[in-house]
Amino acid sequence: MIRKAIITIILFMSANLNAQYFLNGIKINLDWELAYNLPGRGSVKKTNAIVPGAVQLDIANAENYNPWYYDENWKDYLWMEDQFFTYLSKFERPELAPGEKIYFYSGGIDYKFDIMLNGKLLLQQEGMFTPVELDITPHLRDKNELEVVIHPVPKKHDEPADRSQAAASLKPAVSYSWDWHPRLIPSGIWKETYLHKRPASFLDQTDVGYSLSEDLEQATIELTISGTKLRGNQLIWKIRNMEEQVVASKVLQPKGNELTLNLPLANPVLWWPHDQGNPYLYESVVELRNSDNELIQLITRKIGFRKVRLVMNEGAWSEPQGFPKSRSVAPAQLEINGRKIFAKGTNWVNPDIFPGTISPDRYNELTDRAVEANFNMLRVWGGGIVNKDAFYQQCDEKGLLVWQEFPLACNNYVGTPEFLEVLEQESASIITSLRHHPCIAIWSGGNELFNSWSGMTDQSLALRMLNSQCLKYDPGTPYINTSPLMGMGHGHYVFRDMQSGEEVYSIMERAHFTAYTEFGMPGPSSVEILESIIPDDQLWPPKPGTAWESHHAFNAWVGDTWLMQEMIEDYFGPSGSIEELVANGQLIQAEGYKAIYEEARRQKPYCSMALNWCFNEPWPTAANNSLINWPNEPKPGFYAVRDACRPVLASARIKKFKWKEGETFETDIFLLNDLYEEIPPGEITIKLVTDREEQVILKWDHPGASENTNIEGPTARAILPRWDTDRFQLVLESKDHPAYNSAYTLLYRKNRTKRDKTATLNQ
Amino acid sequence: MIRKAIITIILFMSANLNAQYFLNGIKINLDWELAYNLPGRGSVKKTNAIVPGAVQLDIANAENYNPWYYDENWKDYLWMEDQFFTYLSKFERPELAPGEKIYFYSGGIDYKFDIMLNGKLLLQQEGMFTPVELDITPHLRDKNELEVVIHPVPKKHDEPADRSQAAASLKPAVSYSWDWHPRLIPSGIWKETYLHKRPASFLDQTDVGYSLSEDLEQATIELTISGTKLRGNQLIWKIRNMEEQVVASKVLQPKGNELTLNLPLANPVLWWPHDQGNPYLYESVVELRNSDNELIQLITRKIGFRKVRLVMNEGAWSEPQGFPKSRSVAPAQLEINGRKIFAKGTNWVNPDIFPGTISPDRYNELTDRAVEANFNMLRVWGGGIVNKDAFYQQCDEKGLLVWQEFPLACNNYVGTPEFLEVLEQESASIITSLRHHPCIAIWSGGNELFNSWSGMTDQSLALRMLNSQCLKYDPGTPYINTSPLMGMGHGHYVFRDMQSGEEVYSIMERAHFTAYTEFGMPGPSSVEILESIIPDDQLWPPKPGTAWESHHAFNAWVGDTWLMQEMIEDYFGPSGSIEELVANGQLIQAEGYKAIYEEARRQKPYCSMALNWCFNEPWPTAANNSLINWPNEPKPGFYAVRDACRPVLASARIKKFKWKEGETFETDIFLLNDLYEEIPPGEITIKLVTDREEQVILKWDHPGASENTNIEGPTARAILPRWDTDRFQLVLESKDHPAYNSAYTLLYRKNRTKRDKTATLNQ
Repeated sequence: MIRKAIITIILFMSANLNAQYFLNGIKINLDWELAYNLPGRGSVKKTNAIVPGAVQLDIANAENYNPWYYDENWKDYLWMEDQFFTYLSKFERPELAPGEKIYFYSGGIDYKFDIMLNGKLLLQQEGMFTPVELDITPHLRDKNELEVVIHPVPKKHDEPADRSQAAASLKPAVSYSWDWHPRLIPSGIWKETYLHKRPASFLDQTDVGYSLSEDLEQATIELTISGTKLRGNQLIWKIRNMEEQVVASKVLQPKGNELTLNLPLANPVLWWPHDQGNPYLYESVVELRNSDNELIQLITRKIGFRKVRLVMNEGAWSEPQGFPKSRSVAPAQLEINGRKIFAKGTNWVNPDIFPGTISPDRYNELTDRAVEANFNMLRVWGGGIVNKDAFYQQCDEKGLLVWQEFPLACNNYVGTPEFLEVLEQESASIITSLRHHPCIAIWSGGNELFNSWSGMTDQSLALRMLNSQCLKYDPGTPYINTSPLMGMGHGHYVFRDMQSGEEVYSIMERAHFTAYTEFGMPGPSSVEILESIIPDDQLWPPKPGTAWESHHAFNAWVGDTWLMQEMIEDYFGPSGSIEELVANGQLIQAEGYKAIYEEARRQKPYCSMALNWCFNEPWPTAANNSLINWPNEPKPGFYAVRDACRPVLASARIKKFKWKEGETFETDIFLLNDLYEEIPPGEITIKLVTDREEQVILKWDHPGASENTNIEGPTARAILPRWDTDRFQLVLESKDHPAYNSAYTLLYRKNRTKRDKTATLNQ
Repeated sequence: MIRKAIITIILFMSANLNAQYFLNGIKINLDWELAYNLPGRGSVKKTNAIVPGAVQLDIANAENYNPWYYDENWKDYLWMEDQFFTYLSKFERPELAPGEKIYFYSGGIDYKFDIMLNGKLLLQQEGMFTPVELDITPHLRDKNELEVVIHPVPKKHDEPADRSQAAASLKPAVSYSWDWHPRLIPSGIWKETYLHKRPASFLDQTDVGYSLSEDLEQATIELTISGTKLRGNQLIWKIRNMEEQVVASKVLQPKGNELTLNLPLANPVLWWPHDQGNPYLYESVVELRNSDNELIQLITRKIGFRKVRLVMNEGAWSEPQGFPKSRSVAPAQLEINGRKIFAKGTNWVNPDIFPGTISPDRYNELTDRAVEANFNMLRVWGGGIVNKDAFYQQCDEKGLLVWQEFPLACNNYVGTPEFLEVLEQESASIITSLRHHPCIAIWSGGNELFNSWSGMTDQSLALRMLNSQCLKYDPGTPYINTSPLMGMGHGHYVFRDMQSGEEVYSIMERAHFTAYTEFGMPGPSSVEILESIIPDDQLWPPKPGTAWESHHAFNAWVGDTWLMQEMIEDYFGPSGSIEELVANGQLIQAEGYKAIYEEARRQKPYCSMALNWCFNEPWPTAANNSLINWPNEPKPGFYAVRDACRPVLASARIKKFKWKEGETFETDIFLLNDLYEEIPPGEITIKLVTDREEQVILKWDHPGASENTNIEGPTARAILPRWDTDRFQLVLESKDHPAYNSAYTLLYRKNRTKRDKTATLNQ
């Protein structure tokens, strides 16, 4: 089937402002003011507004609020939730040649709003993901006043002040507070917004899609155009490869305003995730020229040829056994261009509390980190926003697969006619704006919708509609209702279960899932970050009810999350300083994450995915499962995960974290290979290392590994000697490939001698 | 949302032939001949054709074939699969007043066909569930020849000659052979077919739908009309209740040919399944009258007001426990009009190999049996046909819920563009023709599609399309992709597992499913039936490779199914005669079915459904899981199931089938109540009974049972005495309510004395 993509020329413009600005009409920037009322004050205040941005930030600026990320300043913003705000812009009638038109364009306005021109209501809309494109030409006066009235944030007012208030809207639920997000709900114009002067002859909309033959050797590219007054002009359509060569082209004189063109392309170079090949991109170039061959419009769009499927995990068809028999699990094995790929990645959350402030650069530094971490997939989690286009462009270019959720999370979104109407509009906008990106590998209805805390089911009309919308607009891309599906696992989110005391090592060894699509491991933030968000007098020791708690160190999820000082000190003893507590907590995070990623990989091919919770964060937390602190400060766990996700590595199955003198240390050794390359035979040395000593406990002459295949090696054992240390490392060293080496830090306790005991008694 | 229903006036006509025949245009019956070639013969033969019917039956009649159900005669029909056949009908041009038109109408033609008039191709169609409605007026001559060319049955020719050949079409797979259906594939005109003369002013299509308020106290009925030349006529719309009173009405003069009308109805009497209330039906009556108030058309349609949902089973949200955590199971709890109902029922299969021969009377005697069996739900299994309208009318009237599957079963129906096109057409026809029936409680994509032998997944485009089509045409009715879904169980299909030797009793006690939507228990057919299908010389002893095997006694499913003589004789000893074997096998079927139905009910409320495999059969089998032999001969198991499905009964959890002297007999006692009524306290006596003795082992003073709630009673125990018998009964007797009494037949073996042993040695 043809994959289609709506390209509004506007999106193109925003990405190519300098070069093609004048070719695609004239963009007229507007100056904006924001009108607001402070609570309890009658008079309207006005301030300059930054667009795109957020009303909260404009007011904070005008009223000299302290930074929202410091201490408990987020509480200053709560009053804004239930207010109306008005963006105001005055402009004079632009000069128009015959046939020219003026449009008001906005990429996105958050969340419910009215647009008025000279006092006349032109549009009322609910939904931040559907762009606004209004022909205002007939309503223009010499002097014009444009108003965008932002309604109070949508809330189910009968629900408590948490995510459940978001259950009747498509407003991302995370802003209503989460275990790593304060209650701080942005609103306002969040995407590029301007007046747009269009020439009389104009391509209003162009879609580029393609179909691929079963053997992937033949592509048919389809261009669909909807325009105005195209007759008498010339249309040139070219496909360029990455070497800037034109590999296919077509020229025609349009007779009508609706056109569909096809171009065949034999043996297209395929797009691959970066760890499997080259994320190769072609470019579709559409030129509209007038009868004098002058360029009126130039519209470019990247194309990545790839086939993506979700297929059954190996071994999953043979389950369940016996009778009565239920169904087999849902497929979770990604297949790209016919190749089964182990998805290593992470859950992506809003890079900022205020989406209006997120720039392409901001996305860029984070997507670079994802590549650095050896990730090939990002799950854009349904509690957050659908990102701006720059994010998906970067994922296309960097070869990062995207699992894109609709903005539904942890609620029961009841299919009332009102909700379904907004869902239909927003989902159509989201799908048609993203479907052309080769990075889009999975559509998902949202997060954890089929669990008790959400209460949605396969019968929920909202999810049936999303399935239907994805089938309609993007049938070539898999759709799942939610994560986890049957066979997928979410969690655990701690190093050691609070009830059972069981550690992540054995929990994971026992686990049997097709995909680990969320698992967390909390770690405290660096001392430098803590000092930047927690007032000095609260910094040590950490206490609930302070900025520590506001920044999610206490009472965030269950137990003493996310700081988990008690567990950390149970392993390491009382912390003497903030530095010591942070170092120990970060070590646990790093070792815990490594254990899960590597165990998930060891369970390949039944298991096919490992995506941790979570990659980044929207503000600086004190403790969190994230690998990267806001805005882009990796924790030590980031580097541990990077190593655990190397395409090839020696890997050890760890049995427990803390060992003691005289115990038989035991570990299962593997060679993990996610490459579609054979790995030659070699030798791996297994050592126990302290800062003073090292002991080789086994040498493994491993055979060669077939492509995308792990090798299960020996179990190494050694009686732990008496060491004068409280920790040691298990080190795996490859003789010929140091890049495969791995190391695991473990705790150690020597037996107490009579002297130790006496010493203890005397304390 | 509004439930809509397309009413073609044709359907109405066929149900009201005598009374309103002339009001809805003139039906002109056609005489048909069938042209066919015998294999290896060049010349075309012609014979009279019975329409509706099947080409196979016409040829069998013409060629004097022996009955298809006897011996192995079904093999005589195999050659017809790959042939073309042509129905021919000659007729003279009917007289037409100005504006009158002639349509060719057929309710269904099986499977791929061309329709030609006077040598001109008017229609080529694939799909037997989409009616044909062709305006042939412009093509008429004075003398006309109509041809319906039936193509060979659809086959994936690269597949073996079994159900897998049906994987690329919407032809019901069962005909390609099943473990209870011979290879015998019908084709031809299978529904009513005629010429239809329509007056100039005519209601071509009417839809009646309704919406119900959340509290079920307010209905809004919607009538949608699409007609021809309606202007100048009068339209009268009435809603009549069952007491023939008009409860709402509207009269208008249509201005156009497309109309939508609404009628409110306060406090509508709701439709209920028969065991929960009255299946109350209103009637919509639409009259089209000309300017002289003469009736042109009268269209009636039954309306049953009910709300149906699939909600989570009680306790299911608290699963799964721990981390990593997958999703909770799919909902399987039916809720009708806000009331949770335990679905007791069965899997309905084609009542005949040749659907064209199934009459309303045939449906009637079988749906009567379903009510007699205390069933409230029929699963119309996806391997078979979607039934004729009479079936659904009867289910409406008798208060039987219908789980309707699309004709997909046990195959991977790959979503090629060609397949999806037919699927879209056929599913739209099926949904729009059935959605108005209040009996339709569940739409399902088909049978066992998410198991290894089918290989479809949540990603299959065919199922995504069916979900989408059901959402589009009938959003108020639940849709599931297949059965079993997650949490539902299919099987077991035998009394004792072949590998483990475990009996159905303990298998079911261990089982933990939300719904048992298929479970079987084979039993041989009565001797009378066996004699009518198996030649005398093959009758005793049963042997593979004879008519016994053709009628599924051997090599039907795994092991020695479905006769299972070895297992029967392992329990009862060698059979001395066909009568003895049948009696013992039928006892096992009866006791096995009772055990499953009652255990499923004991597992309420976590469990919410028990539907056995299967109710009826399309031809006389020698042994089968069916409760009723073809055409309508109940086995003893039917009556056992009827008793197990009584609304209220005393029930015993049996531990095993065969007991011996001196063992401690043990059974758990329950009172089961599926009524929305309180059951008062009472006394139940638990007895062990042989034909000579009886022993009371416990009296249980049971408390009252709340509505729709079971009571778990005591465990009764007794050391089994020495009896001179090989079987005994466990009997539960209610002091005040004999209707609650239950009895279970069990086998018994006394210990061998010295004398017995000596006797054995001397044999």
